[in-house]
Amino acid sequence: MALPVTFLSDYGYADEYVGVIHAVVHRICPQARVIDLGHGVPRHDVVAGALMLARALPFAAPGVHVAVVDPGVGGDRRAVALRTGDGRLLVGPDNGLLAAAADALGGVTEGFEISESPWRLQPVSTTFHGRDIFAPVAARLACGAAPAEAGTRLEPATLCPLELPPVSLGPDGAAVLSVLARDVYGNLALAPGGLGAARLLPGDEVKVLTAAGCWSAACARTFGDVAPGELLLYEDAGGMLALAVNGGDAAAQVGAGAGDELRISRR
Amino acid sequence: MALPVTFLSDYGYADEYVGVIHAVVHRICPQARVIDLGHGVPRHDVVAGALMLARALPFAAPGVHVAVVDPGVGGDRRAVALRTGDGRLLVGPDNGLLAAAADALGGVTEGFEISESPWRLQPVSTTFHGRDIFAPVAARLACGAAPAEAGTRLEPATLCPLELPPVSLGPDGAAVLSVLARDVYGNLALAPGGLGAARLLPGDEVKVLTAAGCWSAACARTFGDVAPGELLLYEDAGGMLALAVNGGDAAAQVGAGAGDELRISRR
Amino acid sequence: MALPVTFLSDYGYADEYVGVIHAVVHRICPQARVIDLGHGVPRHDVVAGALMLARALPFAAPGVHVAVVDPGVGGDRRAVALRTGDGRLLVGPDNGLLAAAADALGGVTEGFEISESPWRLQPVSTTFHGRDIFAPVAARLACGAAPAEAGTRLEPATLCPLELPPVSLGPDGAAVLSVLARDVYGNLALAPGGLGAARLLPGDEVKVLTAAGCWSAACARTFGDVAPGELLLYEDAGGMLALAVNGGDAAAQVGAGAGDELRISRR
Repeated sequence: MALPVTFLSDYGYADEYVGVIHAVVHRICPQARVIDLGHGVPRHDVVAGALMLARALPFAAPGVHVAVVDPGVGGDRRAVALRTGDGRLLVGPDNGLLAAAADALGGVTEGFEISESPWRLQPVSTTFHGRDIFAPVAARLACGAAPAEAGTRLEPATLCPLELPPVSLGPDGAAVLSVLARDVYGNLALAPGGLGAARLLPGDEVKVLTAAGCWSAACARTFGDVAPGELLLYEDAGGMLALAVNGGDAAAQVGAGAGDELRISRR
Repeated sequence: MALPVTFLSDYGYADEYVGVIHAVVHRICPQARVIDLGHGVPRHDVVAGALMLARALPFAAPGVHVAVVDPGVGGDRRAVALRTGDGRLLVGPDNGLLAAAADALGGVTEGFEISESPWRLQPVSTTFHGRDIFAPVAARLACGAAPAEAGTRLEPATLCPLELPPVSLGPDGAAVLSVLARDVYGNLALAPGGLGAARLLPGDEVKVLTAAGCWSAACARTFGDVAPGELLLYEDAGGMLALAVNGGDAAAQVGAGAGDELRISRR
Repeated sequence: MALPVTFLSDYGYADEYVGVIHAVVHRICPQARVIDLGHGVPRHDVVAGALMLARALPFAAPGVHVAVVDPGVGGDRRAVALRTGDGRLLVGPDNGLLAAAADALGGVTEGFEISESPWRLQPVSTTFHGRDIFAPVAARLACGAAPAEAGTRLEPATLCPLELPPVSLGPDGAAVLSVLARDVYGNLALAPGGLGAARLLPGDEVKVLTAAGCWSAACARTFGDVAPGELLLYEDAGGMLALAVNGGDAAAQVGAGAGDELRISRR
C-alpha cells in the first residue's frame, strides 16, 4: 500500500511536463495514486504557489506532496524533502514554496537535501528537476523508502522562508499591506504572523481602507466572535493575518483582490 | 470495491478547485477512481454543462456522477443527489444541470436534498459547495453508503428543469429555434422534446433555413431512414430535437453552430 | 493486472473529449491506469505531437500508448496498433504521429490496421475515432487481448513516415534546416537521420548560423566528446540530428527556437 502523491506546479497544460512527471512516478511506484492539485500557478510565482499549496493540502490525505514553482532551477537553490509535524512529506525546491504549507501542518520536524539524491534520474537536466529529482524522490517515498535515504540531513532552521511583500508599520500603529491572495470564500490573506503582523490583538477595533473606501473591522479569533455581515481580522488556518466577513465575501465588500494595497488604522 | 466517480465542472484549470475536489474524494473513499469529464464548461453556463454531461455520461460506466456549474451557490437553490432509471447516482445543484443527463438515463427514480447532509464538510463555505457538499457526498456514495442517508427525500417532480431558449411556433407551423449545441459529429441539438418540440412527425418533409441558406430535410426516426448525405430532423439519444446529415456534418452543411438561429418551415 | 495506458492528443481542455476517452477506457478495462501525457498539442500539428510523444514515452513504463493528432480523421488514413521493438503497443492514426516514438523505441516489429476492429464502438463517428476506435482498442490491449485480434495485419514498411520540413543540402556541403522542436534542456531537434541528415560525420568541425549570429560546433557522439560550454551536433535519443551545448542551453546560446531556420556550413 503506497502513500498518495499530490502534485502542484506552474508547468501549465501546453506541454508534456505534467504528464512526464506522472509517468516517472508511475514507473517507479506503480501503486501510488497521484492527485493533481493544479498546474495553473502563474509561471515562477512562488508566493501564489505557496499559498495555493497551503490552502489545498489540509483537504488532502497525508502522503507525499510535490510542489514545483522553481525559478532558480539549475542554480544553487537546494532541492529538499521535508517531514511536517503532522507526518506529511513535502518535496520541492527550497525557495519558500513549501513554507506556508509546512507552517500550517505542524512545522518542519526534519529535512533532507536531495539535489544529489541517489534516487535521481541521471543525467540530471539543468531545467527539469521535476522529472529528474522531485518525481523519483516522491515516488520512492510513496513506496515506503525512508526519507533519510533520499539525501543528506539538513537543519530545518536553514530553510528559506516564503518572501512576502513587507508590512509597513507607521509610528501611529497604522499598517500598510498588500493583499497576497483571495480564497474561494472571498477571504483576503494579508501577511503571515496572524494579528501580530500588524501589531493587533483580539478585541481591537480598527478601520480598513482600500481604494474603494473605508470600513470598521474587529480583531477576533473566530468568525463567531463578530455578528453576521461584520468584517473581522483574524489568523486563518494557515497562520496568515486575514480579512473576512462572517457569512459574507470580504473581497467584494472592500473591493480588493490579490496585489491590491490595504491599510489598517487604529482610528 | 467502490463505484467510479466522474466529475464535470466550470472550475477551469487556473486554480486548485478541481484538485481539492479530488483530494476530498480520495480522503473519504481512497479506493474510488475519479474520472474528469472536463472542467472547461464556460463559467456559469448551465445549459452548456448540462448538454456536455448528457453527451458524455452514456459512455461512462455507471457510478457516481458529480457535476458543478452553480451560479446560485450560496443562495437557496437545493443541492441534490438523484438516482436514475439505469441505476446511476447524479450529484450536483438543482438548477437544471443534471436534467438532460437524467432524462437520457432513465429519468429520476428518487432524489435527496443534501444541502444539510450529515456528510458535508463543516463549516460549509458560501462559495465552494463542490468541496464542502458535493465531493464528500459523492465519496460516501462511491464507497457504498445509502443515498437515503445523504439527506432528506425530495419529490422528483419538484426538480428544476433545464431552462432552454424558447421554441417559437408560428400559426403556419414554422418553428424558430436556437442551436443549443454542436456535437463532435456536427449534429445540432435544437430543443428538448424530440420532433414534438416543433410539432413535427416522422415522415414530414420540411425546409431548414439559416443565415447561410435553405435546405430540405426529412423528419425521421434514425439516420438509416434517409439516404446518405441527406439532412434529417430526429430525436437524439438525449431526447433532443436534432439536425443531422446521414454520414455527414450538419453544422458545416447548414453553416450554423451553437447560439445561431435556425428556422424550420413546412413549405 | 492490466497494462498502463498513456494518452496524448490535441483535444485541448475546453470540451469533454479527453474525459470521454477516459470513460471509455475505464468502462472496458476498469483496472487499467490511464496517464495523460498532455492534450495541449497545437491542433492538427502532427510534427509537434510526434516529437512530444517521442520525448515523453521513454520515461513511461511500457504499456499501451495512445496518441491522437488526426487531421485526416474520417478520410482514408489508416488507424493502427503497432508493437515496438521494446515491447510497447502504440495506438493511433497512421499519419506519422507514432513514427518518431516507434523509431526511438526499437522500431515497429508488427502492425495491425484497426479501422474495422471488432472492438470498435458502433456506429463509428466520422470525427471522433479517439472515442470509437482508439480508446476501445487500447482498453482491450491493456486488459491483455492479443494485438492480432485488434484488426488485420499490415506490413510495417507501408506505415507513413513523419513528414518533416526538408533539409536543403547545397553542393558545398552546407545544409539549411528548420528547428523542429526545443526540449526542456534547450536542445534543438533539427532533422531525423542523425548526423547523416546533413552529410556529417563524428569529428567534423562546422559553423552554425542563425539570425542571431555564427558559432563553431563539433560533430560528436555524446556530450562528453566536447568541452563544457561547447556546441555539439549529435544524434539524440530519438534518432534526430540535434544541436546542444555540453552543460548549457543551445537554444539560448544560438538564439533559435521551433520553426526558425538554421544553417550548417563546413567553413
